Amino acid sequence: MANKQFDVVVIGAGPGGYIAAIRAAQLGLTTACIESESYADPKGEVRLGGTCLNVGCIPSKALLRSSELFDEANHSFVMHGITAEGIKVDVGTMVRRKDNIVTQLTSGIRGLFKKNKVTLLPGRGSFKGRENELWEIVVAGKDGTEVVAAKHVIVATGSSARHLDGIPVDNEVICDNAGALSFGSVPKRLGVIGAGVIGLELGSVWKRLGSEVTILEALPDFLAAADPAVAKEAWKTFTQKQGLKIHLGVKIGAVKQGKKGVTVEYENGEGAQKLECDRLIVSVGRVPNTAGLDAGNVGLRIDERGRIEVNDHCQTNLENVWAVGDVIRGAMLAHKGMEEGVMVAELIAGQAGHVNYDAIPWVIYTHPEIAWVGKTETQLKNEGVDYRAGQIPFLANGRALGQGDTTGFVKMLADAKTDRILGVHVIGANASELIAEAVVAMEFGASSEDIARICHAHPTLSETMHEAALAVEKRALHF
Amino acid sequence: MANKQFDVVVIGAGPGGYIAAIRAAQLGLTTACIESESYADPKGEVRLGGTCLNVGCIPSKALLRSSELFDEANHSFVMHGITAEGIKVDVGTMVRRKDNIVTQLTSGIRGLFKKNKVTLLPGRGSFKGRENELWEIVVAGKDGTEVVAAKHVIVATGSSARHLDGIPVDNEVICDNAGALSFGSVPKRLGVIGAGVIGLELGSVWKRLGSEVTILEALPDFLAAADPAVAKEAWKTFTQKQGLKIHLGVKIGAVKQGKKGVTVEYENGEGAQKLECDRLIVSVGRVPNTAGLDAGNVGLRIDERGRIEVNDHCQTNLENVWAVGDVIRGAMLAHKGMEEGVMVAELIAGQAGHVNYDAIPWVIYTHPEIAWVGKTETQLKNEGVDYRAGQIPFLANGRALGQGDTTGFVKMLADAKTDRILGVHVIGANASELIAEAVVAMEFGASSEDIARICHAHPTLSETMHEAALAVEKRALHF
Repeated sequence: MANKQFDVVVIGAGPGGYIAAIRAAQLGLTTACIESESYADPKGEVRLGGTCLNVGCIPSKALLRSSELFDEANHSFVMHGITAEGIKVDVGTMVRRKDNIVTQLTSGIRGLFKKNKVTLLPGRGSFKGRENELWEIVVAGKDGTEVVAAKHVIVATGSSARHLDGIPVDNEVICDNAGALSFGSVPKRLGVIGAGVIGLELGSVWKRLGSEVTILEALPDFLAAADPAVAKEAWKTFTQKQGLKIHLGVKIGAVKQGKKGVTVEYENGEGAQKLECDRLIVSVGRVPNTAGLDAGNVGLRIDERGRIEVNDHCQTNLENVWAVGDVIRGAMLAHKGMEEGVMVAELIAGQAGHVNYDAIPWVIYTHPEIAWVGKTETQLKNEGVDYRAGQIPFLANGRALGQGDTTGFVKMLADAKTDRILGVHVIGANASELIAEAVVAMEFGASSEDIARICHAHPTLSETMHEAALAVEKRALHF
Repeated sequence: MANKQFDVVVIGAGPGGYIAAIRAAQLGLTTACIESESYADPKGEVRLGGTCLNVGCIPSKALLRSSELFDEANHSFVMHGITAEGIKVDVGTMVRRKDNIVTQLTSGIRGLFKKNKVTLLPGRGSFKGRENELWEIVVAGKDGTEVVAAKHVIVATGSSARHLDGIPVDNEVICDNAGALSFGSVPKRLGVIGAGVIGLELGSVWKRLGSEVTILEALPDFLAAADPAVAKEAWKTFTQKQGLKIHLGVKIGAVKQGKKGVTVEYENGEGAQKLECDRLIVSVGRVPNTAGLDAGNVGLRIDERGRIEVNDHCQTNLENVWAVGDVIRGAMLAHKGMEEGVMVAELIAGQAGHVNYDAIPWVIYTHPEIAWVGKTETQLKNEGVDYRAGQIPFLANGRALGQGDTTGFVKMLADAKTDRILGVHVIGANASELIAEAVVAMEFGASSEDIARICHAHPTLSETMHEAALAVEKRALHF
């Protein structure tokens, strides 16, 4: 018999989990959240916030900012008439700043749990069974194991970096996302396997700080998920302007770690190649975390890709068992998990929760940033949709010129008949913020003409969104 | 008899004027645009873009960016572990960069005129009379005067800096916006009369570059047009964190220019005071430009504040004579003029042009930036509207922490009964871009719950907009 009983028990305190827990508690449900990870907490305490907060979105953005400032000092100052000598970076200070931000935010979630009356259960959560219409959940903590009972269970166990056979990650020399955020110094030669979001973001950080960066990607196309025009612009910017070396369509062979670093053997169209580097980042995707759940004890269904099977409302095959975030189908994005967390909490509380998966924005935090919502031109072509496109470069934008950062463009895709916006794609400074307007527009079923008729403050980068909308009707005013 | 005849003649090539001209031409109307100002063009050629582009929005943003980078180097680098020695700024290079941006954009408008087949008529435009249902417009250029005939006239002559009796602006030592954008060096002591948008923006630029800045403001309240919470936060940030000295409720007395600089005598609550400074910026508002129009020749009606009288559709008292932008009622904002320019062109072409004055955003480009749309809390109180407010600080935002810039907040005001958003107020980094989402939402008549239910990318500053919407219902997730 379980000692404690809750209306809702959430397994995992990442973005999907902590948000589900807070929202459930706000709605008057007695709620607990189980978390086992302490990451590199100095006291060994459990840390809330999951991958995103501890070894993902937040720390990478902190380092991206620091490295951007360093890059600006080295490359942009001169055009503004600013001079400085001996510009150096102390990686230790940079990493400590990042660690402090993470600590502040993860403590913040503890505070939010307290404020909202969410009970934190430190330990690893797994399914034991079902008794009296309640789920029995084992919480295996450092100091012992307890069983709690829950009317509803929300699984939010997230994902882990995928590792490759024969490439042992020690997070010192060969690193996944976690290790790559805590290098003690700038590696002279950095290798990256995988030109996805994480590889590009972290590759950019260390490139700016002085590393020679070589990225090896198995797929023949660069950023295949992005709109082709965006992928092309990104490729041009990263490889030609920023000097990232990216090799596509490679087949990774043996990876050998020696005293002097790492040797990666690979093949490309031109035959056998070898990459020598001092450190190697392996960023080849992420796998859902279901191993420790004891899903078999209760018959929780997991699909062939290791994800918990759910319907549109994040319900699993078991009554009152839900799953959200990286552990289920769909994009592995923190905000997608959060939306699902809110939806599930509201559904449990008898409200009408809903996630519009067509209006979830994507962001890649390189510089320029890349962000989009809705369909790419490739998708529309494949679906046989008749569309119109408007594309305007930031070079035609006064704010971008003022900022000294004119790379990229906004591209809007709208239905040729109804003019409804089907997709918006931004590559450029602040793309991550500019996309918010497009998401709101799409949620309201806006047409390109709606955006064209809405006043945009001058001078702002968002005027380029306005112009892209005008360009759909071939009546751009500033291009 | 006029030699040339056009469907539309626009007087003035600022934002309202050039946009009206381009849009009219796009709609198939034969269009000319008259402009006389050459600003500081090295060849003495007429420059398009008006105050905004030549001596307003664009050059000030260029300098704001440069001075921000300098400020970051001096104050922010250390926390990121970046060190540099002998950080200096060469004001000449900084100003030249600004001038180049202005030149690029003003040339760009020439290109847009060519592309859209707008005839540029260099010279000063004024009304001569009316003949055969056509308006006769005099164009007094450098090389002579001609008269052109127009079915429709759009007056877009803009505004000029208001000068004060007894304070002669030479734009060397005592400057308005034009001179203050082209200082040859950083003044040690800079005085500013007027704590409005221009005074604050330019005061900030020179403060960051090293000036001691003192701003004298006649009004007793700081930023009275902004929401009171925003004004309070701005006051705290500018005076306490950034060290701008701002004195409110002062009465300016004699201003004396000597060899060593300028002395401004003024009175405040504590009696007679004296400000000694090396340069003085006078930024006490702007006055509509109607003097050279010969409005009396045709009976064009001008109101008691010197503005051309227009109705909601920017029609003057004369048939087929329209006016847009700073020369008429309403906010002196470039994008407001542009919207009016588009509306008038479309009305002339027989379309249904319209400007929603309730959804025009305001921006102040200090750092933090300030932006808002819709009503302030003060306005709602005065109007007796029953409202709810949600306010979330950027301190609770992961992106803001990552960027190292957590000043400010987002505040959303919504109708207490219908939940319709009535106003959104942002003070913080990137406020100018974040406001775009709020403008779109308000144009769609969104409720705060709509924004609360829309997915916002993580981690972005726009999540604070999301949280402010949640806070309206007292269910913020991250605060």
